[in-house]
Amino acid sequence: MLPSFDDVRDAAARIAPHARVTPVMRSELIDARVGATVWFKCENLQRGGAFKFRGATNAVWSLGDEDAARGVVTHSSGNHGNALAMAARTRGITAHVVVPEGAVKAKVDAIVAAGATIHRCAPTTAAREAMAAEVMAATGATLVHPYADARVMAGQGTLVLELMAQAPGIDTLLFPVGGGGLAAGCSIAAHGIDASIALLGAEPEGADDAARSLEAGARVGPFTPETVCDGLRTLVGEPNFQALSQHQVRVLRVSDAEVVAAMRLMWTELRTIVEPSSATTLAAMLRYPGEFAGRSVGAVITGGNVDLDALPW
Amino acid sequence: MLPSFDDVRDAAARIAPHARVTPVMRSELIDARVGATVWFKCENLQRGGAFKFRGATNAVWSLGDEDAARGVVTHSSGNHGNALAMAARTRGITAHVVVPEGAVKAKVDAIVAAGATIHRCAPTTAAREAMAAEVMAATGATLVHPYADARVMAGQGTLVLELMAQAPGIDTLLFPVGGGGLAAGCSIAAHGIDASIALLGAEPEGADDAARSLEAGARVGPFTPETVCDGLRTLVGEPNFQALSQHQVRVLRVSDAEVVAAMRLMWTELRTIVEPSSATTLAAMLRYPGEFAGRSVGAVITGGNVDLDALPW
Repeated sequence: MLPSFDDVRDAAARIAPHARVTPVMRSELIDARVGATVWFKCENLQRGGAFKFRGATNAVWSLGDEDAARGVVTHSSGNHGNALAMAARTRGITAHVVVPEGAVKAKVDAIVAAGATIHRCAPTTAAREAMAAEVMAATGATLVHPYADARVMAGQGTLVLELMAQAPGIDTLLFPVGGGGLAAGCSIAAHGIDASIALLGAEPEGADDAARSLEAGARVGPFTPETVCDGLRTLVGEPNFQALSQHQVRVLRVSDAEVVAAMRLMWTELRTIVEPSSATTLAAMLRYPGEFAGRSVGAVITGGNVDLDALPW
Repeated sequence: MLPSFDDVRDAAARIAPHARVTPVMRSELIDARVGATVWFKCENLQRGGAFKFRGATNAVWSLGDEDAARGVVTHSSGNHGNALAMAARTRGITAHVVVPEGAVKAKVDAIVAAGATIHRCAPTTAAREAMAAEVMAATGATLVHPYADARVMAGQGTLVLELMAQAPGIDTLLFPVGGGGLAAGCSIAAHGIDASIALLGAEPEGADDAARSLEAGARVGPFTPETVCDGLRTLVGEPNFQALSQHQVRVLRVSDAEVVAAMRLMWTELRTIVEPSSATTLAAMLRYPGEFAGRSVGAVITGGNVDLDALPW
């Protein structure tokens, strides 16, 4: 099930007491390099350092009181797990986060610090899903999937409502594509406002399943993503793929080297900390200037959670 | 000569068409660690990535048309040189920047890119001043000193007018102290608004000439600063020292190790890029909690120009 534009507007009202209205940033130098007017929407400055807080908060506050009292559960040791823990806290309910063995300790610590209950399992998709099902059966908690969830997609789309008010005249929207929660929500929101807005995704060459799926007209089979963009090592979800197809999203491929160069340029020029996934957008603008020349582009900075001891240059 | 509060207000009007109103940032975690309400004023997001653009722009636009036509000159290969080059460009006049041999190439390149005329000299204070005097004699350009200049001080103080409007209720202002242009301007501006505001400086232990000068009641003699804070390797100027004395500024010393730890915390928590000098403020708050407990603190992030290939951790 996909959310409607009304669902996105409802989500915006629902999360307003909890989420930040994030700023937009500009750079004369980047504009000149790209040949366009670029507005960077800074979700790295969202609570928890990623857009994920929007979708998680919309999901948590969409629940009726009885369901909410039984808590929420997800299997994500990354930004979504942390976002769900933080969102649950805004409602005073329990978040259960299934964490595979081998997850990054700093991320798990953050999830614990946000007040979630951790459930450990083997590092396979099957083990994660089984453990989540077990928690659901034992507690009655509601599953909040990281991206294949209409409430989550609607929540992510709320950033577009803000962006269009902050930067009037945007005719092109550009976002990284991982599982597709952000991509789907942003596409629905943008076309709800103006059906003529061009929608472009950016994907690392080593995790280009969305690009290949859209080219093939159906989701491509499982493969192992390999990219410096740790936030995009996820295959696009089925409802997410449907949304991208319906909204004629075109996905541009970028190399990891291009991502790292773009990330450095964003750090230097915008003086804001973005994670590799977020730099796919600037990398795409620099690699495919013909797609952007003369346009007014909204580019989503998805997150700013990086390991300062393992920078990719 | 020191500027008056009226000079600061005039400067704010003068630079408004050119400078950015920079945002303020908050962090729940940092508030909890410090035990205070902390508002970070983000001059790292000012044009050129440092507060220096304010003072340089005020100086450039304070000139009469005839003086302006002969250009401006300074001897600084750091943020002030770049700021003066950018400021001169806003008025369409020439900036001459005296650059000592051995200056960081990336910084010199930025000054050239901003349109300034470079004059090279030997890497000594005497050579720099002689070359600046030579340029003044040959061109009639006006000297804009990096900090011992009333127009520059007034310009730097404008950030306090913004901060007090953005964060009502501030009772403590905290800033790094180098040459003292920022410190003097901010002190005059803050006490012009509210004479009861506590003024605190932060200084690296290896460049603590302002702290020692205030303790001694007179500027201490020349010594060689040694600190990771490249922006604070300057001795406090004479008018700057007078301003700090008059406004009862107390300067807190921090170690380089504390600065580096605070810098990391700011990058991680605020997700904004600050240079080492800017982290002296958070380092001071963490080292001297008694000075800040329960207070509402405005802390100036002075700049965000760092070499990503030479991070201090």
